[in-house]
Amino acid sequence: MNKKITIFDSTLRDGVQGQGISFSVEDKLKIVKCLDKLGVEYIEAGNPGSNPKDIEFFKRIKELTLKKSKIVAFGSTRRVGVETKDDNNVKNLLAVETDAICIFGKSWDFHATEILKTTLDENLQMIKDTVSYLKGKNKQVFFDAEHFFDGYKNNSEYAMKTVEAAKEAGADAVVLCDTNGGTLPQEIYEITKAVQDAFKDISIGVHAHNDMGMAVANSIMAVEGGANHIQGTFIGFGERCGNANLSTIIPILQLKMGFNIVDSEKLSELTSSARFISEVSNITLNDDAPFVGNGAFAHKGGMHIDAVCKDPVSYEHIEPTLVGNKRRFLISEVSGKSTVYSQIQKISPELPKDCEETKIITERLKELEFQGYQFEGAEGTVELIMRKILGKYKPFFELIDFKVIGEQPSLDSNFKSTAMMHIVVDGKKEMTAAEGEGPINALDKALRKALEVFYPELQSVRLVDYKVRVLDTGCATKAKVRVLIESTDGEEKWSTVGVSTDIIEASWVALVDSIEYKLIKNIEKKLKAYF
Amino acid sequence: MNKKITIFDSTLRDGVQGQGISFSVEDKLKIVKCLDKLGVEYIEAGNPGSNPKDIEFFKRIKELTLKKSKIVAFGSTRRVGVETKDDNNVKNLLAVETDAICIFGKSWDFHATEILKTTLDENLQMIKDTVSYLKGKNKQVFFDAEHFFDGYKNNSEYAMKTVEAAKEAGADAVVLCDTNGGTLPQEIYEITKAVQDAFKDISIGVHAHNDMGMAVANSIMAVEGGANHIQGTFIGFGERCGNANLSTIIPILQLKMGFNIVDSEKLSELTSSARFISEVSNITLNDDAPFVGNGAFAHKGGMHIDAVCKDPVSYEHIEPTLVGNKRRFLISEVSGKSTVYSQIQKISPELPKDCEETKIITERLKELEFQGYQFEGAEGTVELIMRKILGKYKPFFELIDFKVIGEQPSLDSNFKSTAMMHIVVDGKKEMTAAEGEGPINALDKALRKALEVFYPELQSVRLVDYKVRVLDTGCATKAKVRVLIESTDGEEKWSTVGVSTDIIEASWVALVDSIEYKLIKNIEKKLKAYF
Repeated sequence: MNKKITIFDSTLRDGVQGQGISFSVEDKLKIVKCLDKLGVEYIEAGNPGSNPKDIEFFKRIKELTLKKSKIVAFGSTRRVGVETKDDNNVKNLLAVETDAICIFGKSWDFHATEILKTTLDENLQMIKDTVSYLKGKNKQVFFDAEHFFDGYKNNSEYAMKTVEAAKEAGADAVVLCDTNGGTLPQEIYEITKAVQDAFKDISIGVHAHNDMGMAVANSIMAVEGGANHIQGTFIGFGERCGNANLSTIIPILQLKMGFNIVDSEKLSELTSSARFISEVSNITLNDDAPFVGNGAFAHKGGMHIDAVCKDPVSYEHIEPTLVGNKRRFLISEVSGKSTVYSQIQKISPELPKDCEETKIITERLKELEFQGYQFEGAEGTVELIMRKILGKYKPFFELIDFKVIGEQPSLDSNFKSTAMMHIVVDGKKEMTAAEGEGPINALDKALRKALEVFYPELQSVRLVDYKVRVLDTGCATKAKVRVLIESTDGEEKWSTVGVSTDIIEASWVALVDSIEYKLIKNIEKKLKAYF
Repeated sequence: MNKKITIFDSTLRDGVQGQGISFSVEDKLKIVKCLDKLGVEYIEAGNPGSNPKDIEFFKRIKELTLKKSKIVAFGSTRRVGVETKDDNNVKNLLAVETDAICIFGKSWDFHATEILKTTLDENLQMIKDTVSYLKGKNKQVFFDAEHFFDGYKNNSEYAMKTVEAAKEAGADAVVLCDTNGGTLPQEIYEITKAVQDAFKDISIGVHAHNDMGMAVANSIMAVEGGANHIQGTFIGFGERCGNANLSTIIPILQLKMGFNIVDSEKLSELTSSARFISEVSNITLNDDAPFVGNGAFAHKGGMHIDAVCKDPVSYEHIEPTLVGNKRRFLISEVSGKSTVYSQIQKISPELPKDCEETKIITERLKELEFQGYQFEGAEGTVELIMRKILGKYKPFFELIDFKVIGEQPSLDSNFKSTAMMHIVVDGKKEMTAAEGEGPINALDKALRKALEVFYPELQSVRLVDYKVRVLDTGCATKAKVRVLIESTDGEEKWSTVGVSTDIIEASWVALVDSIEYKLIKNIEKKLKAYF
């Protein structure tokens, strides 16, 4: 397609309106680098008028040399009854010295009169004045027409006047916002088209919210209606139900609609970018996130798995590697023996499909699932269970006993945790003890202290995530808990799981699996290096 | 609108294909009752041919008297080269004696020839035979045309023939499936319309998947194109990226498009139904879930909160109570003093807006947020912090010291946890000790043992959820953790939070807050009863 579509990321600005989202200056710089590497054209990075942290950010960002992205500062039109040059918000916008600025103004008559408490004419004048003032300062100016669709439905004539005001004043694009997220896809299409028909030579953007779960589709329908600029946040978080999710929109535009949004080799960094941004944002990326989720190409039903083995196109709408994701076959009670067998083959390729081990392992996994284990996110533990049954496992150490003490000796003193244990490695008994920040850390430290002597490669291993899930919520603090530990050695990541009514025991089980898994992988690597 | 739309829920069948989803027979019965109460017309409840648990379920479901819902059994067309009456899957479908049956068959030529390994003609015959056989048994029959949209794009003539085969055989509806979830909304609209135009008198359904984050919009676009039957799962889970989310689609159809889907007083049970089904499914309902999420009507930005206080329509597309949800103002670093003040008013209504306390509390909350606290989901803790500063708090007990021991005395013995503590209530010193299933449970038990003597109302309190979040994932097991505890007394739910590098200490802080919050609420209730 000849039409060019511009991506405008607002993770660092509108994304921060999302529940639980808060960025340090360092976080923001990390995300800018990631988006620039991917090739996102505009990054709306903050509101210099609202937040001292954002001013610090705009200072620091100048030290970075970006390859592709332009940084955008966000603010509003001048206030009612103030000259633009005297408006503090506008001054702050100019002070941060970005090449591009995005300002929002009101397109819904109700907002002008009832929220801003001004006249419809003054509101138009505020848009004109601010856009033309910023254009006079040689800025690229985007005008976010807030509540455009609601405004259009309420008073289309006035809504169109706000677009005209921005256009006449020289705005580089007029962005139609579905601020409350309540507009239907067919309405978005028709209204965008009406704007395009009325202002032929205008660049139209869309800014959709997800209050009806349709922000992605609404952005796509706006493109159908004439929009060529899409605003969203990278993994979709934002106020209320979030913003249009760019990690979904980018591959749709590129793979399904033929637009050239990012270089195709960059598209394969989509998944890792989304995961990195989730990590920095300290949120869990949903497994079912389109394109980039851990489960986006995960197959569970036996029949589907069989078909995908014949030809992946049978149950996959794209090849997962195009977006840097991968196919997974989930181990579960509805997955058949063929899934288990495909995993067995990685460990014992010599075994035939109808071997007894497939049956035994399938039964064992079901039994553990019944006890509360869940293997879909814990490949490390699954491999260890299989190895134990397949006879491809030898313990790396033996535990004799352990004890953990957590205490607050008096009200003024600090809480402290201590662990002690006896283990045996290669016939040598070792007693170790360690203090830690919390019982699991104390245990972890005591265990490593003993093991690192024998296995120095464990020094690179660290825990990346530690999740606790209460299983039978009716049983209060004595409920069974499932602990999921995600570990990394800086290159690979793996997950292990433990279940117990005792959080320390469940953590211990997952911790031991994590360490053993790493040691097995290292042996495998060494073997590969030999042959 | 005159057109009637039928809702067909497949939470219990297609939903089970989702990662981490598994139902017991009891779970299924609970969900059926919930959907029936809400007024969902069809509940596809399982595949009697694939799973012994499903056969047990279909036996049990006959004991229930449902008001609105019809139970549907799911299966496939007869196998290649088998007579329908001899097909085991078809026999199983009939054996469970439901009034309605849904069968799927292939509409994509590629699937018929490459996956089923049969001829295109035999595939059509399989559809005809199975539908007409089941119609001959007086069943209501839905035909799921698997991969219809992909099939249509590949070979529209053949795809149309499969629809014709089902129609001629008497299918009550032909459901167009976007099985791989890769079809664009405008394609869904056009193809559905083409089917409607070709077969005027047919009832068309849609079954959308969320691989491009557009399953809801695709279902809506199918309705625009002529569909009058929508299949989905109640909170959207399903294979890969999930199915069309009915808890989103129902309010869109009813509130935005004017269809009468459920009784309007039932619509206000939408949120509680979605939360109940999440609970039974043991998944966390996303805060940003449209309509029903905890954050769907949560406002964080100070300017937005001010506008919503003036008129909620400014930043809300519907009135939250219509779907049984509620408006929330989030306490956070970007929320201004007005949010804090609106909370203060609930405790100390006599204080003016510019009081010193607002400033002190705002500062204190920011400081704690900096330490890793997050208050957006922890109203209980926020209220206690405010009360302490406002002087509306008196401790219910005083802790002197505590100690927790977790130990595995030998490899064969069971892990055990013990807690002991000294506390003072009303000047009386008490020492208690308890064994528990895990350290937190032991602590909880020891604390209650002492407190229930003085506050018997604590007996009704139990923990509903216990979440642990590792804050600085770079620091492994010694990272700071945030513990979020959700408690209930059977009527109300409240959440409290604790942060520490030690999971036991963080849990302790949240546990104590939870108990104190409950005791305060009880005093408030008693006061209200007096005045």
